[in-house]
Amino acid sequence: MAKIVECVPNYSEGRDLEKIEKIVAPFKEDTRIELLGVEPDGDYNRTVVTVMGEPEIVAEAVIRSIGIAAEVIDMNVHRGEHKRMGATDVVPFIPIKDMTVEECNELSKKVGKAVWERYQVPIFLYENTASAPNRVSLPDIRKGEYEGMKEKMLLPEWAPDFGERAPHPTAGVTAVGCRMPLIAFNINLDTADVEIAKKIAKAIRFSSGGFRYIQAGPAEIKEKGFVQVTMNIKDFKKNPIYRVFETVKMEAKRYGVNVTGSEIIGAVPMEAIVESLAYYLGVEDLGMNKILESKLMK
Amino acid sequence: MAKIVECVPNYSEGRDLEKIEKIVAPFKEDTRIELLGVEPDGDYNRTVVTVMGEPEIVAEAVIRSIGIAAEVIDMNVHRGEHKRMGATDVVPFIPIKDMTVEECNELSKKVGKAVWERYQVPIFLYENTASAPNRVSLPDIRKGEYEGMKEKMLLPEWAPDFGERAPHPTAGVTAVGCRMPLIAFNINLDTADVEIAKKIAKAIRFSSGGFRYIQAGPAEIKEKGFVQVTMNIKDFKKNPIYRVFETVKMEAKRYGVNVTGSEIIGAVPMEAIVESLAYYLGVEDLGMNKILESKLMK
Repeated sequence: MAKIVECVPNYSEGRDLEKIEKIVAPFKEDTRIELLGVEPDGDYNRTVVTVMGEPEIVAEAVIRSIGIAAEVIDMNVHRGEHKRMGATDVVPFIPIKDMTVEECNELSKKVGKAVWERYQVPIFLYENTASAPNRVSLPDIRKGEYEGMKEKMLLPEWAPDFGERAPHPTAGVTAVGCRMPLIAFNINLDTADVEIAKKIAKAIRFSSGGFRYIQAGPAEIKEKGFVQVTMNIKDFKKNPIYRVFETVKMEAKRYGVNVTGSEIIGAVPMEAIVESLAYYLGVEDLGMNKILESKLMK
Repeated sequence: MAKIVECVPNYSEGRDLEKIEKIVAPFKEDTRIELLGVEPDGDYNRTVVTVMGEPEIVAEAVIRSIGIAAEVIDMNVHRGEHKRMGATDVVPFIPIKDMTVEECNELSKKVGKAVWERYQVPIFLYENTASAPNRVSLPDIRKGEYEGMKEKMLLPEWAPDFGERAPHPTAGVTAVGCRMPLIAFNINLDTADVEIAKKIAKAIRFSSGGFRYIQAGPAEIKEKGFVQVTMNIKDFKKNPIYRVFETVKMEAKRYGVNVTGSEIIGAVPMEAIVESLAYYLGVEDLGMNKILESKLMK
C-alpha cells in the first residue's frame, strides 16, 4: 500500500487571491493530490495550505509551488501580523501512513535541496529534520524575521542547510522539515476556577516538567461557566491521548474537580484513536491492521 | 467521496480450485475492486469471498460471479458439511462508508433482480432487505436446503422475492441482502470458572433477554487458564463496543471477577472504534469527519 504524507506549507500572502491562486495551482493541477485546505488570513497576510498524497507526488508539487511563491511575493514589501522570514515561510511534512520519520526526513531534505537548486531560496531544516539543536524550533530559526536574516545568516551557527549565507533578495528563506501530526485536545473541568486548569496544565506540559510532547495551558469557557486544560499533543505515539486524559483526571481529583468531557479540534490520525481505545478495552493487538478501512487506502 | 460496500458471497464449491478460480475471475479482472479474501473449505465444500469497492462496481462483478457459479456448480451432486441451498448460497452486502442501510438494501434488490433476469436463479432477500419477518434470518430461508427447496417454494409464505416458485435446476436459490458489519469480540475474565462466563454471556445476549444485536457464549482458554465471554456484535451502531464491555465488567463484579482485557477477531470498521473512544473521553463530536484518513478514502 502506498505511503501517504501530509504537507502544510505557509505562504506570506493572505490578501491577493490571484497570487494565492497561482501558488496553489500545482496542487490543483495534479489530481493525485488531495488539496484539503487553503486558508488565507488577511491580518496575518499569510495562507496556510493543507495537502495529502504520495510523498514523491506531493514533494514535486510543493517544490513548484515554492517556486511560484518566490516569483509572486516580494518580502521587501510584505507586512502582516504573523512572524515570517520567507515568501514560503515554513513547509512541514507530516508522515500519515506507512511512512517512517526517517523517510519523512529524507523527503524534507530532498525538497530543501531542490528548492535551493531551482530557485536559489536558502533552506533551514527544522523539527525532526534539524541538523543541530538550535534549529529544531521554528521560532528560533525565524527570530529576526525576514528583515534580520541577512545579518543572522552570517553568524557561524546560522548557515543554512542548503544554499548560500544570504537570503533570497525577494523570497527570503524557508524552513522545511518533518514533524509528527499534532492533535489539539481540550479537557473540560466542572469548575469555573481557571487557577485549577492552570495548575493541571503545568503538571502535564513539558515546559514545566510534564510529558515530553505536551504543550498545555488553561482556557476559560466563560459562556458555559467552566474551564479547560487546552493542549497540543505533538507526538501521539509517545504521549497517547488516553494517558494525558487519565493524568488530567487524576490531577483534577486533588482539587475535588471532575473531568466532564473533552474535545478534539481539527483532524486526528486514525492510529491515535485506535491506540487509545486499545487502552480502555485492554486489547493487546488492536492496531491499524485490524481496521477495515485501512485496506481501502492504497 | 465515494461510497464503499463490502460483499462476502458464499459459493458451494470448496474443493475444485479451477472452478473457484473461474468464480472469482470477475473480482480479479476489475482493478477497482479490492479482493480481500478467497477462503475455500474442503469439508464444507464452500468458498467465502470478501471484496470491497464502490457499490455499482462491486455489484456488477458479484452478478457476473453468481452467473459463473451457476454454470460450473451442479447442486444435484454437491456434498458438504455446511448447510446450503444454491450454487451461490448467500450474498451479504455490508455498508462500509458513506452508505446508508437503505442504499445498501436498494443495491441488494438490484443485484437480486439482475441475477434472476440474467441467470434465472430465484432470489430471497434477507436480513435488513427482507420483505417479510419470516425471511430475515438466513437459517429460516435455508431450512430444507437445496433438496427441499422445490417443495418449500410452493408454500404461500416462501415465494421468492425475484423469480418463479421453483429453484434453478442446477444452481438452486440464492439469498441476497444487506447486513451490518459484524464485530467478533471476546472479553477475558480472571477466572477459570466457565460457569461465570456463561452467566455473563446470558446477561448480555439477545436470546436470553440482553442487548438486541449481541450473540454471546462462554469460551475456555484452557492453555492460559482463564475463560472468555465470546460474542458477535451484529450492529455496532446500536450496541457499541464500549457498552458491551462496560456491562460485562459490571456483571463480572457480581462474581468477584475482573475483566483483564479483550480481543477483536478480524477487521472492525473505523467508526466502531471512534464511537467507543468518544465514550471514554467524553468527546461529543468525535466522528468519522474528525479522522484524517477518512479524507483519503475516495
